[in-house]
Amino acid sequence: MPDINKYKERLTELRERVTYTGKTLLERSRKWRCFSTKPPSNCDVVVTFERDTREEQVEWLSNRIQARIPELIFTKTFHRGTQRIALYLTCSFKDLLKGAQEVRLRKRLIADLGEELQEFCIEDCENFEGVFDQEKFFTSKERQTIVRYYLMSLRAMAGDAWDDHTQFSHGQAIMPVLLAKGKIASIFPLHDREALMDLQQSWVRGFTHRQPLDAVAEYFGVKIALYFAWLGHYTTFLLAPAIFGLFSWFLVSTTKQGALYYPVLAFFTMVWAVFFQEAWKRTNNYYTHRWGTLDKSPSLLEEPRPLFRGALEPNPITGRLEPFYPRWKRNLIVCFVTIPITLICLIIIVGVAVGHLKLQELAEDKFTNSSIPGAKMIVHIPMILYAVNIAILNEVYRKIAVKLTELENHRLNESYNQALISKLILFQFINAFYASFYIAFYRLDLDLLRNHLVTMLVTRQITGNIKEIFLPMGQTRIKQVLLTLRTDGLPTLKKDESPVPGLNEEESETLDPDSPARKISDVKITRVEQEEIMPVYDDATEDYLEMFIQFGFVSMFTCAFPICGLLAFLNNILEIRSDAFKLLTNFQRPFAENANGIGVWEQAFEIVSYVAIAVNVGLIGVSGSIQTIIPGLTSYQNILILVAIEHILFALRFGLSHIIPPIPLALERSIAILEHKRREALKTLQREERKEARRISDENCEQDYPSDVTSDIDSH
Amino acid sequence: MPDINKYKERLTELRERVTYTGKTLLERSRKWRCFSTKPPSNCDVVVTFERDTREEQVEWLSNRIQARIPELIFTKTFHRGTQRIALYLTCSFKDLLKGAQEVRLRKRLIADLGEELQEFCIEDCENFEGVFDQEKFFTSKERQTIVRYYLMSLRAMAGDAWDDHTQFSHGQAIMPVLLAKGKIASIFPLHDREALMDLQQSWVRGFTHRQPLDAVAEYFGVKIALYFAWLGHYTTFLLAPAIFGLFSWFLVSTTKQGALYYPVLAFFTMVWAVFFQEAWKRTNNYYTHRWGTLDKSPSLLEEPRPLFRGALEPNPITGRLEPFYPRWKRNLIVCFVTIPITLICLIIIVGVAVGHLKLQELAEDKFTNSSIPGAKMIVHIPMILYAVNIAILNEVYRKIAVKLTELENHRLNESYNQALISKLILFQFINAFYASFYIAFYRLDLDLLRNHLVTMLVTRQITGNIKEIFLPMGQTRIKQVLLTLRTDGLPTLKKDESPVPGLNEEESETLDPDSPARKISDVKITRVEQEEIMPVYDDATEDYLEMFIQFGFVSMFTCAFPICGLLAFLNNILEIRSDAFKLLTNFQRPFAENANGIGVWEQAFEIVSYVAIAVNVGLIGVSGSIQTIIPGLTSYQNILILVAIEHILFALRFGLSHIIPPIPLALERSIAILEHKRREALKTLQREERKEARRISDENCEQDYPSDVTSDIDSH
Repeated sequence: MPDINKYKERLTELRERVTYTGKTLLERSRKWRCFSTKPPSNCDVVVTFERDTREEQVEWLSNRIQARIPELIFTKTFHRGTQRIALYLTCSFKDLLKGAQEVRLRKRLIADLGEELQEFCIEDCENFEGVFDQEKFFTSKERQTIVRYYLMSLRAMAGDAWDDHTQFSHGQAIMPVLLAKGKIASIFPLHDREALMDLQQSWVRGFTHRQPLDAVAEYFGVKIALYFAWLGHYTTFLLAPAIFGLFSWFLVSTTKQGALYYPVLAFFTMVWAVFFQEAWKRTNNYYTHRWGTLDKSPSLLEEPRPLFRGALEPNPITGRLEPFYPRWKRNLIVCFVTIPITLICLIIIVGVAVGHLKLQELAEDKFTNSSIPGAKMIVHIPMILYAVNIAILNEVYRKIAVKLTELENHRLNESYNQALISKLILFQFINAFYASFYIAFYRLDLDLLRNHLVTMLVTRQITGNIKEIFLPMGQTRIKQVLLTLRTDGLPTLKKDESPVPGLNEEESETLDPDSPARKISDVKITRVEQEEIMPVYDDATEDYLEMFIQFGFVSMFTCAFPICGLLAFLNNILEIRSDAFKLLTNFQRPFAENANGIGVWEQAFEIVSYVAIAVNVGLIGVSGSIQTIIPGLTSYQNILILVAIEHILFALRFGLSHIIPPIPLALERSIAILEHKRREALKTLQREERKEARRISDENCEQDYPSDVTSDIDSH
Repeated sequence: MPDINKYKERLTELRERVTYTGKTLLERSRKWRCFSTKPPSNCDVVVTFERDTREEQVEWLSNRIQARIPELIFTKTFHRGTQRIALYLTCSFKDLLKGAQEVRLRKRLIADLGEELQEFCIEDCENFEGVFDQEKFFTSKERQTIVRYYLMSLRAMAGDAWDDHTQFSHGQAIMPVLLAKGKIASIFPLHDREALMDLQQSWVRGFTHRQPLDAVAEYFGVKIALYFAWLGHYTTFLLAPAIFGLFSWFLVSTTKQGALYYPVLAFFTMVWAVFFQEAWKRTNNYYTHRWGTLDKSPSLLEEPRPLFRGALEPNPITGRLEPFYPRWKRNLIVCFVTIPITLICLIIIVGVAVGHLKLQELAEDKFTNSSIPGAKMIVHIPMILYAVNIAILNEVYRKIAVKLTELENHRLNESYNQALISKLILFQFINAFYASFYIAFYRLDLDLLRNHLVTMLVTRQITGNIKEIFLPMGQTRIKQVLLTLRTDGLPTLKKDESPVPGLNEEESETLDPDSPARKISDVKITRVEQEEIMPVYDDATEDYLEMFIQFGFVSMFTCAFPICGLLAFLNNILEIRSDAFKLLTNFQRPFAENANGIGVWEQAFEIVSYVAIAVNVGLIGVSGSIQTIIPGLTSYQNILILVAIEHILFALRFGLSHIIPPIPLALERSIAILEHKRREALKTLQREERKEARRISDENCEQDYPSDVTSDIDSH
């Protein structure tokens, strides 16, 4: 190997750097008391405090961090614009390496070892690609993950207290509690301007290209990248109903015998939905394998949610004391609290919807043809009332759902989210479709339904996009302007009122004119402050929800309104870019999260596609196409035929979904090989352990040992 | 440790035994040419040949076995009674140990190491409990498994041929081919009389005890034990509908308002079916964990079916050349051959059934009240015709199903069986229920349905038990009598016609008067011959099928005929013992097979429980109970309500099945721990490998190496 000298040089270099960085950063970290509003060049995560936080409190926290998590290097800063104290956190390279091992970060091995993704390990760090390049070895995403990991691992000791109302029990995680109680305003990672620019170019403006999903996964993490992968997959699949729907639309319009196409369209939509969903499972596995998250560690290894309650017990794997909550208790709560309350809520919502519809009918009957001036306006009152009601109900229901899900006390963030989302889905589903169902199955008016669908789809899509892009954009703008006014010395800020006396305001205003913050905006607020005032991107739930409702329209109403697919397709081409745009420009950078799938959404889409079968068959019934095809049927016979068709479609749907294998063969094989290697490895290790134990017990006896027995057995 | 001397003594003992046994058995195996009809005391597996097999052919096979699988020790014997040549096979203890390692047999570790089940390994064999007890270390089941493994691994070389029609390609497995072509009549393991007696006592006669499932698993293997575990679970669960049904039956009979109970019964049955099935998943996991088969190796490690075809490719795990057949081809065959042909078959079957019913009706109309003499008899002709038709169709369909499944070319025995069983289920389902459906939903005559159900259930159960116990028993008896006549020197056997000249008939008749064979039966045939003429127990498919049909009756018709559950319960208490009895006395011992569940039956029962919801709702409709409860409904409204009820029940069924966790918590944890250990073990090994690779590359360069870098990084 000719590289061996270079390799050794690098090792020495690494050694020096690690020592050097360790020392200097440690020195710097001791000087943290001199405030600086200038963000350190290597700030990864920012913590901001509630506005009326006293300096002693920040001091208290800083001391705790310094004493218990010496890996964290932080700078205390006062944000003049937002009037908040902030901590800018980072780690030395050495500690990043250590953290990478603790969070089981997967890094790529060097080329000689096959470039596989492997959990990083300090002991043989030189086998990982690029470990000698201190600047580039960790991506910004990875640095932030590690820094957050350190920050979140800060645990209280007995007697620790933030204020009189916020006291900690021994071993409690401090940061999540302060965050949940609002003492800490936000913890967020910083955007990487360069990477943002690249993504802007290749993703938002790249209409003609495939999405740069690898780059997205690298910047935002696998969970968000999976949403976009899914969105791309769904949009591609929408092409089929778009074309087929357009085609049938022409046929229906020209032949005037539309009813005949209903069964064909219903069948087509059912088959399409199956293939879309089953194909997604394959795509999902392809991407998660590529990004190294398909293979999931046992969930017992994951940190429990900070708010998870239970008696402390040692974790059976790690041995660490952790809260434990019996599963049967959760199940009891689900059965006897969650389900009844949710049902009651849904009944109320359905009641309100029905009430609104009745009111609407009444108003239309009375006032549409009335000659009283202003009567036309009264017709719209129920609609407005309903909109208000729904907005209130939505808020109330969301609060109830959160409370219920908290009561269920899920151990993992993931299962908490799934439980919450599945409750929200129910509400949104009723809310989105009650009117369509009413028109289709109560009024039995398919023309009105078509009109309604056009309105709904188009308005939903337009308002959705506006809400998504312009609302947060506007919010941020307004906040920025307000901030600028404030920092420009308006009377709102009196120097005496500064919550942290002694802040060097001189320094906070001497911004380097060449800094990116200055270039990006002309106001005198720093880049960090700009990001601080941006809204938080919780997760892709809202985006999924939007697509979920859209999928509902496409799968349920295509046969009454074949153009659905086309509208959805056109919308989604834009949606991909607008979702990307908003993520890149409107929101704080989210912490990267891993995922091995789209979670509860997979089931949600599957259930809707079963509901869609029933709705489609119902629409066939309403259209009377069976009676058109077979004249002379009684309505009783008609219904029997419809029920039969529905059941056959259910059975077909069920059967079809089992034909497509969810994992590509090559992937299945590589998973099997890995699994096999693990089994063999454990056996080998256990065997060696047993040998070792035997050897020790033999040595203790100090007698000679017939060691050739096993070899005798072995050699046949 | 005070045991250390004893332990060393044992080791020396083991060493001597292994060497000794190896030599003597090897010596004996060289003397295999002298024939002996006396079964060797340690015969594990018997191979019998087709009657007109020539001695050269047996010689040819013997030579191949001796040369290629030297582990097998065999004795050639001539069975006078059945006129077949037989090979009695066994292995030396040493080779059993070797085989145990190769088949990855799981054995228990010694108490010091926690008594866990671990794959046996010669290298540290002394860590396994009881390895020094040569007689008892392997159970008869395990010995047979290993001997069969050796026997089946006999592979052909280029040019090998049994006769002109049976030639082998290089690497082909010889025994499965000979077995499939009928050249070898049977390969079967021998019963263990002692264990049989114990089981007879504790299992068949133990009406008041729980089934001794551990002993069953040890004797017959996990797959069969799981059937009995399932049967016990099902029978226990039948108590609920038995009691509830009896109760409702009284209410229905006394109040004369039976229709009102239909919805309650339908709901109850649905809930019962879910809990029965979900609870089984837990029980299943409990038992398979206990018996060490829950944790399944990747299926790529399993041997492909001998008749699996495909281009030879290296197995990605073992590297061994194996046939490979692309999955998409199989899927294409399933979609475009299997499904259409199966559908056509089912349509024909339904056609025949409908034709029969029409004929029956016609005959009843014409002849029941006719005065022509013998007209009463004519009424029964359609029934007889149908019985004949169905018997023929059943045979034809079964053949088609086997052909189709062979065409699908499944790699594993398990998936082959699943594909075949799912086809057979369809046929049996239609066959069992067409008449009930006809009476319920076409004739709409619930009283007739009840009569029909009683007849069906009772006759099915009685004939089923007779067929199961007395038929094979009678067959065996008759064969035994025939054999006895033959061996007693009736003219059917001329000495010149003896197919293997030179057989020492003197010896074959000098049976030890104290041998078990003599005691058990007074005829002059050996124990092995007695077992040879017994029918083969394929697997539990027929038994499952019987229970499947019974479950269909209980879940679908309980609401029309609440006593179903009671009848089924009473039958099954007997069924458990009669199935056990037949397995212990009527059949050849089957080779033990592993399984981690009841396979395709789980899905079959699940699908039936969905179908049952539809049937129950249909019966509610037929009974008119909705109209009784809500008077004044039009038939149109009635149907809408029924469809709504059905959909709600579907949704509830789906929801409920997700609430009960399929794995008990403790089990889930131990699985997670194992999984974690495997992952960590692989990581450790890989890290060590990398270190080793580095060390070697460093040594090659012969330069000094800054080894303290990593330790520097590690010590923070």
